[in-house]
Amino acid sequence: MNTFINIVPDQNTIVQAANRIKPYIHHTPVLTSSIINNIFNAELFFKCENFQKAGAFKSRGAVNTVFSLSDEQLKNGVCTHSSGNHAQALARAARLRNTKAYIVMPKNSPIVKVNAVKYYGGKITFCKPNLKAREDTLNIIISNTNATEVHPYNDNRIIAAQATAAKELIEETGFLDIIMTPVGGGGLLSGTALSVHYFSPKTKVIAAEPEKADDAFRSFYQRKLIPSKNPDTIADGLLTSLGTITFPIILKFVNEIVTVSENAIIESMKLVWERMKIIIEPSSAVPIAALLEKKIDPTNKKIGIILSGGNVDLEKLPWNK
Amino acid sequence: MNTFINIVPDQNTIVQAANRIKPYIHHTPVLTSSIINNIFNAELFFKCENFQKAGAFKSRGAVNTVFSLSDEQLKNGVCTHSSGNHAQALARAARLRNTKAYIVMPKNSPIVKVNAVKYYGGKITFCKPNLKAREDTLNIIISNTNATEVHPYNDNRIIAAQATAAKELIEETGFLDIIMTPVGGGGLLSGTALSVHYFSPKTKVIAAEPEKADDAFRSFYQRKLIPSKNPDTIADGLLTSLGTITFPIILKFVNEIVTVSENAIIESMKLVWERMKIIIEPSSAVPIAALLEKKIDPTNKKIGIILSGGNVDLEKLPWNK
Repeated sequence: MNTFINIVPDQNTIVQAANRIKPYIHHTPVLTSSIINNIFNAELFFKCENFQKAGAFKSRGAVNTVFSLSDEQLKNGVCTHSSGNHAQALARAARLRNTKAYIVMPKNSPIVKVNAVKYYGGKITFCKPNLKAREDTLNIIISNTNATEVHPYNDNRIIAAQATAAKELIEETGFLDIIMTPVGGGGLLSGTALSVHYFSPKTKVIAAEPEKADDAFRSFYQRKLIPSKNPDTIADGLLTSLGTITFPIILKFVNEIVTVSENAIIESMKLVWERMKIIIEPSSAVPIAALLEKKIDPTNKKIGIILSGGNVDLEKLPWNK
Repeated sequence: MNTFINIVPDQNTIVQAANRIKPYIHHTPVLTSSIINNIFNAELFFKCENFQKAGAFKSRGAVNTVFSLSDEQLKNGVCTHSSGNHAQALARAARLRNTKAYIVMPKNSPIVKVNAVKYYGGKITFCKPNLKAREDTLNIIISNTNATEVHPYNDNRIIAAQATAAKELIEETGFLDIIMTPVGGGGLLSGTALSVHYFSPKTKVIAAEPEKADDAFRSFYQRKLIPSKNPDTIADGLLTSLGTITFPIILKFVNEIVTVSENAIIESMKLVWERMKIIIEPSSAVPIAALLEKKIDPTNKKIGIILSGGNVDLEKLPWNK
């Protein structure tokens, strides 16, 4: 067990990540809503990573990793495959260090996300929308360019940086009974769990996941890594499966994982739009959906919720289908 | 002219309004967006009244007026006719003082706004969607109940309170070259112009109005009150015409009024949703539309824009028509 503890990011690594990324990311606000507090009979604190640079917490990890690389490692650019927020975040981080970002995107990626990657100067290669095509295409790009791969979540530099959102939240609100995040690949969740472990050890960490992409739920309770098969959820940021680095941290430091229905995700997303007047993407609504479906009891508790991102195709809103 | 000056709210009246409403409204944040600044080559400061209680700046005026009334004046409740944000704001303000709010709403009012009035405990009477029916119905209610009418804009208590949004903006940003607001009945615009006159007299005040509801534009340049005939704009908060109290203030203290197309309003609204991840209603987008259509030159200027509200029917977004 000691060996394991030694390889996860320690407290100092998270503080260093916070300092490294500080000039290049937003210290996002924590918002509250008296109407939503009344609905749940709780005190909810929303950490608004939907206002983060490039529209999601992913900017924290991308900036930390790119700014941890040497000039030598950066000279041929960086690369990844992603249909979503990590793609934009990496393109932006690369531009900040004047290097190239090669992004493999499935050809069915939302046009808004493709445009955002282009806006930040990313060089896009489209591929078929499956994991094998994405990995094969990325490997071709790496062998052609020698670019350095930046994984979206299964990397300690990413995890340490995603941890900084919860660190900021705790610093702003004081003691919280619970912190909730959504879980996809587990970068945000594992980082959040580490920050809670180091900076607020009496706070519980509860993750929420779509029923239709429940690999983290199953892996957590069966205590072995079980990747998703054909996940299918409106929460497009949560289609990925836990990684070999994120999973052990989650297993050790997370208290609970609950699953939620698609309808509850849509209803929660709309609740936040209508009542808080902020735009969150479906993935961000997943923890709120867990309250709506009474998967956890929020009564009289102080609960921090990390709103992971705000990148939504406004032409295709779930309630206009 | 001295007589006129004596009857408009003075500096002290605005400060008193600010103090009176402070416990019951949000001190809303001022947000910026580097992407939008780049688009316009300017420094824009958005005063987010879309985050205001009941979703719009109207809460300022409603709270100030209701809290200025005596117990005697309140004992039979308050009333107004409104299809929109003033209705919600007045219902909320009345509830804060434990009195009734009778709201006359045209029967085609958006269901979200009807629900919001109900949420705050307002007693709704529906009527035909025209001004005569609204006024007739309100008169019946007044004669039945003896409730005190609270006009949505043509009232110095309302104007003095709407002025507090610009006052907060100026206090937060320091000197601004320009402050922009939309204009409907002129409560927000006249209040803003007074705050600028008292607290930042070198700042220009520019209002933006939909081409298809341009009574303020025409009244301003023809220097006589010309009410709208059949206004028709997606900016549903701007369908009203200037009042006898708001118009003279606007004529004296506003520098310029420009008009914008419906397409520019929709495009500007979407720009803010996509880039800032906040929900604004079409009326709020009207000043940004004026930049988009180059009706004023923002180059290298510091410009404050009051985002008037965020109450939107999410089922009926203009880009999904």
